[in-house]
Amino acid sequence: MKEEKVSRFSVSVPGKLLKELDAMIKQKGYSNRSQAIADMIKDHLVEHNEKLGKKEIAGTITLVYDHHKSHIQATLTDTQHEYHDCIISTVHVHLDHDNCLEVLIVKGMADVIRKIADELIACKGIKHGKLTVTTTGKDIPS
Amino acid sequence: MKEEKVSRFSVSVPGKLLKELDAMIKQKGYSNRSQAIADMIKDHLVEHNEKLGKKEIAGTITLVYDHHKSHIQATLTDTQHEYHDCIISTVHVHLDHDNCLEVLIVKGMADVIRKIADELIACKGIKHGKLTVTTTGKDIPS
Amino acid sequence: MKEEKVSRFSVSVPGKLLKELDAMIKQKGYSNRSQAIADMIKDHLVEHNEKLGKKEIAGTITLVYDHHKSHIQATLTDTQHEYHDCIISTVHVHLDHDNCLEVLIVKGMADVIRKIADELIACKGIKHGKLTVTTTGKDIPS
Amino acid sequence: MKEEKVSRFSVSVPGKLLKELDAMIKQKGYSNRSQAIADMIKDHLVEHNEKLGKKEIAGTITLVYDHHKSHIQATLTDTQHEYHDCIISTVHVHLDHDNCLEVLIVKGMADVIRKIADELIACKGIKHGKLTVTTTGKDIPS
Repeated sequence: MKEEKVSRFSVSVPGKLLKELDAMIKQKGYSNRSQAIADMIKDHLVEHNEKLGKKEIAGTITLVYDHHKSHIQATLTDTQHEYHDCIISTVHVHLDHDNCLEVLIVKGMADVIRKIADELIACKGIKHGKLTVTTTGKDIPS
Repeated sequence: MKEEKVSRFSVSVPGKLLKELDAMIKQKGYSNRSQAIADMIKDHLVEHNEKLGKKEIAGTITLVYDHHKSHIQATLTDTQHEYHDCIISTVHVHLDHDNCLEVLIVKGMADVIRKIADELIACKGIKHGKLTVTTTGKDIPS
Repeated sequence: MKEEKVSRFSVSVPGKLLKELDAMIKQKGYSNRSQAIADMIKDHLVEHNEKLGKKEIAGTITLVYDHHKSHIQATLTDTQHEYHDCIISTVHVHLDHDNCLEVLIVKGMADVIRKIADELIACKGIKHGKLTVTTTGKDIPS
Repeated sequence: MKEEKVSRFSVSVPGKLLKELDAMIKQKGYSNRSQAIADMIKDHLVEHNEKLGKKEIAGTITLVYDHHKSHIQATLTDTQHEYHDCIISTVHVHLDHDNCLEVLIVKGMADVIRKIADELIACKGIKHGKLTVTTTGKDIPS
């Protein structure tokens, strides 16, 4: 079994901040500070990599809309098929008689993913849209 | 101005993660690790303290992990079944031989959803996890 | 043995489909189209007459279609929202520039599920549709 | 707009069968016999192509199991990752505290898909499993 090398370093933060950190860690159910800090670092790495553009990312695009709005479905589908290489699959949940929650699962170059998200979220009739970026897992140790 | 008390603590993270952290810190222009870590903590506190409370939301919980990590799947599934009333469905994408992308589509009271997300993201072995909150569409006109 | 009355009727299908039908008939060793079509009808009657009735089932409805076909998406979505209580979620895969694979995950009374499937599969423009019935797991020991 | 060529042919079937066909067509909501017969032909073509093996198909593999059964999840995931090139995504629905409905959306050569399905359905602990075959849409007119 491959043993992963662990690095140790020390951090200085305002006392009040450390207290608040410890309270949050406890509420979130982490067993120690290192694991919580590691998760924060990963979260910021993911976001940072997305901003750099030329890196492969995975993620989701979440859209809420009323499917009765004229043309919205045709527009969303046309856009999605244009980029079908980056869209692994789309889950559609019928929230109620009118409202749809659509979650696209995407993988591709960060700048292309951002472009798809911008295009979809800007569609007339979208109530709320959001791009959530994560890692493809290759560049982040667990 | 009152001098604020500084607390010092040490953190252990995988060596590879520390290397990537240092590269990001340099690119972002921080003068030292402590300042960068402090900013990350503040960022997460802001998100954590956002009042979600007793409101029905829809959303997604995105998780990336290596399915070979011991017990991670059993742990994730057990937690999800505990809250099966709030989890509409979970999409699992096999990114490569090791890495999994799991997207839970959730609907329920905001504080419960937050709790589920916290519990899942804190699981040992999760490379990256994120809660994305959106509307159920009822309270937002399109 | 009583001689059975034979009825004759004419059918119009896309030319390409007829060509593929004839190739399949030949491979299967049928001596004429009527015999092959009669067997298909019997096959579908058996499936249709299967008593599903008042029992809770889980299952999937699989649909393949060209999203460019006029109104098909609006029709499918309207039907799905009518029955949103029985449709847990719908996964949409963009197979290529034109073709969509849509998988509805359903749970409900067998006769209602059958009705939803029939309605969706009969939509003009559906290339292929199929209801797959499975158990909710409650009545089957593992 | 491309006009698709329509072919007309006549069919002779036992009178009783035609009557039953017409009753089924009406119950299923088809607007005419030709559309219903076309759908039956497509259904049989899809099945026939699957049996031929060396043809690209799309489809779903539906599995119901109790996630508490020892090792079942690890086994299912390991098998799925082995074939991750053919599995577009897997939707997992938490039916209740114990039972899981897992739907794999697959695309690939018919014989490989069949092999994956056989391997998964044979796993100890699966309550019910089913391969549903459909078209990739390329070879079937709408």
